[in-house]
Amino acid sequence: MFRKLFTFEEAKKAIEKHFAVKPLGIEEVSLLEAYNRVLAEDVVAPLDIPPFNRSTVDGYAVKSEDTFGADENRPVKLKLCGVVNVGEMPKIKVEHGTAAEIMTGAPIPEGADAVVMAEDTERKNSDIYIYAAVAKDENVMKAGADIKRGETVVKQGQILGAREIGAIAAVGLSKVKVYKIPRVAVLSTGAEITEPGKPLAQGKIYDINAYSLSTAVMESGGKPVYLGVFPDDPNEIEKALRHALTSADIVVTSGGVSVGPKDVIPKTLSFLGKPGVIVCGIATKPGKPTTIAIVEGKPIFALPGHPTSALLIFHLLVRQIIECMAGRKTVEAATIRAFASTRMFPARGRRTFVMVKIKRDESQRFMAEPVPVGLSGAITTLLRADGFIEIPENQQFVDAGEGVTVHLFKNLENIRV
Amino acid sequence: MFRKLFTFEEAKKAIEKHFAVKPLGIEEVSLLEAYNRVLAEDVVAPLDIPPFNRSTVDGYAVKSEDTFGADENRPVKLKLCGVVNVGEMPKIKVEHGTAAEIMTGAPIPEGADAVVMAEDTERKNSDIYIYAAVAKDENVMKAGADIKRGETVVKQGQILGAREIGAIAAVGLSKVKVYKIPRVAVLSTGAEITEPGKPLAQGKIYDINAYSLSTAVMESGGKPVYLGVFPDDPNEIEKALRHALTSADIVVTSGGVSVGPKDVIPKTLSFLGKPGVIVCGIATKPGKPTTIAIVEGKPIFALPGHPTSALLIFHLLVRQIIECMAGRKTVEAATIRAFASTRMFPARGRRTFVMVKIKRDESQRFMAEPVPVGLSGAITTLLRADGFIEIPENQQFVDAGEGVTVHLFKNLENIRV
Repeated sequence: MFRKLFTFEEAKKAIEKHFAVKPLGIEEVSLLEAYNRVLAEDVVAPLDIPPFNRSTVDGYAVKSEDTFGADENRPVKLKLCGVVNVGEMPKIKVEHGTAAEIMTGAPIPEGADAVVMAEDTERKNSDIYIYAAVAKDENVMKAGADIKRGETVVKQGQILGAREIGAIAAVGLSKVKVYKIPRVAVLSTGAEITEPGKPLAQGKIYDINAYSLSTAVMESGGKPVYLGVFPDDPNEIEKALRHALTSADIVVTSGGVSVGPKDVIPKTLSFLGKPGVIVCGIATKPGKPTTIAIVEGKPIFALPGHPTSALLIFHLLVRQIIECMAGRKTVEAATIRAFASTRMFPARGRRTFVMVKIKRDESQRFMAEPVPVGLSGAITTLLRADGFIEIPENQQFVDAGEGVTVHLFKNLENIRV
Repeated sequence: MFRKLFTFEEAKKAIEKHFAVKPLGIEEVSLLEAYNRVLAEDVVAPLDIPPFNRSTVDGYAVKSEDTFGADENRPVKLKLCGVVNVGEMPKIKVEHGTAAEIMTGAPIPEGADAVVMAEDTERKNSDIYIYAAVAKDENVMKAGADIKRGETVVKQGQILGAREIGAIAAVGLSKVKVYKIPRVAVLSTGAEITEPGKPLAQGKIYDINAYSLSTAVMESGGKPVYLGVFPDDPNEIEKALRHALTSADIVVTSGGVSVGPKDVIPKTLSFLGKPGVIVCGIATKPGKPTTIAIVEGKPIFALPGHPTSALLIFHLLVRQIIECMAGRKTVEAATIRAFASTRMFPARGRRTFVMVKIKRDESQRFMAEPVPVGLSGAITTLLRADGFIEIPENQQFVDAGEGVTVHLFKNLENIRV
């Protein structure tokens, strides 16, 4: 097993080399269950919308030339030949000298080519007086005027919201092809780790990572398969990983990846299948022990045990792979520009990610204030940081007052500053 | 039945007067299913985190005073008294002159008050040479240093994401109290309206609104109860509305609210129960026929049939009520400033909402270009508009080039400009 640290970019390239990141597949779902799914093929209108010439007003359907010359002083008189209701196909025909009463949205009857608005008419028994001329097609929405048969209504790749789902319903489809949701197995390891809800024996602590990472999977458009907590036992870990590989498309573990004698994850990964471990440690801080393997064509990300490190590396390396497998365009996390509140040093030779809290200074400028990561604040760091800044390997430091780009964990609107 | 148009503000006040908008209730869910739910009570740590004094390094647990004076040239020699592993409660006691081997994360054994890092030591059989002095508590994380028992970990009202769910797991909880999700019954009416997926008879069109509004309900944090399409038959509508009231907390209908003889919704709402119709028409464009009733303590929003109008009025009046019932803080839709691409006129005496598309002009400024609403583009309007601008009742017009605030339907990042 090699122990050369990869740079962040080398780690990404190694993944790309051994694993073709692409959408997982396509499934058909009911349109009512398609919210927030990603459309897997263009939706093409199978019919004209509207499907027929339609009145846009309440009034009288006429032959337009019968109304020529009509005005307020010299109305044209037509004979009522019937009524056209909404939702019915008209059985009547409008001949010269006649008019059909028509409702908004009803189909234009045969023979008519325009509609006179009710307010421009007067009715006396079956005589209709027309007080305004109409041009051909006036107050008529032609078949296909909104969408033509064969036209693309919503494009492949679109995330489906209220407007897109309404438009797909409009062309008559009740089902829609969307990208499958990748299943991501999540498990934690460590002799001291206990599942929440169980009694806590002395010397043990509760698991954080399987919960935070399962949720991060959902935030990325995947479906977590929660497998729970496993002790540092090679047989148990091997069994758990084999089970994970059969029940999911990606596996994410945390803990058990340092160099200690109990760090069984890298050892187990090295004999589970080919090519096995492709990245064994990355030159970042935090996240150095991160180990990545490909087994049976599925990626396994073994993240560090520290909760903030695990979630950060998930954001940097795993999130985009889940998004891509889910057919989602990878959206870079939102960023804002801020000023460093203090001088910050990178770890020597490692790309350093500093967790920061966003504050405002007295002139209302955004300030990025480091939140210490480390054993001293596993949970408080997780909750207090609004995002992180990245310091390149070759940079000496970020100076106090220097402008920095903060990658936000969530939208700035949800951050109280 | 009164037909006075309410202003937009009067309509909102009428709702507040007759319906106490507040969270619906509380339920307990598994922490693994709590993603995107709203926390209904403060989560308070039932134990210290960490629960015990914990080593932050691999090394040797010692009495700090035994190491005083030790340096690279004059090591202190201690006798190995045992090993403390992670996840185990130490059975040994560190006496003067002794040291216990200890792993990162393991509990500090009785008698020890500091840990010397492994790299500052040398081991010869059971003799440990200490090459650096440590102070009391050095390399020790005290019980409760991250979170004290009784401390609030996550506050009531917080929407639960990866970090919050991780923190709740950390204090050992596998269940969490969240606000109930309001159920919103959605139905469409109209003789011409056909459910997608069914064959389309001549003169009919497919339903859009039950689909777009059901999705908008999900976007607002509610659960839609899709009831389908009903013809303009008073008995059928009454049955449908009574069913809706028993199966949901809010009812949203569309269509059947104009003044035509077939507009049965307002009539039915007027005798369903007290107080019945509280708003019968609002002075907005679009949205004028919007009718609001309270029956059996539940609000019924009867929206116009035009898809863009229905969705707009939903956004303006219904969304915030669902959000509040779901325990969510109502977040105003994101806005951007843009310049009007053309002069826009409000409808006389009505607050006018103009659907706009965001473009960039040659100097990269955001331009708001009106998208015509009306029968001529039910679907295309819905899809093309990025948001809307609001023109007050008393304003003559918005001039071309004038700065306007655009209320966005979705985040600007998702809009191609």
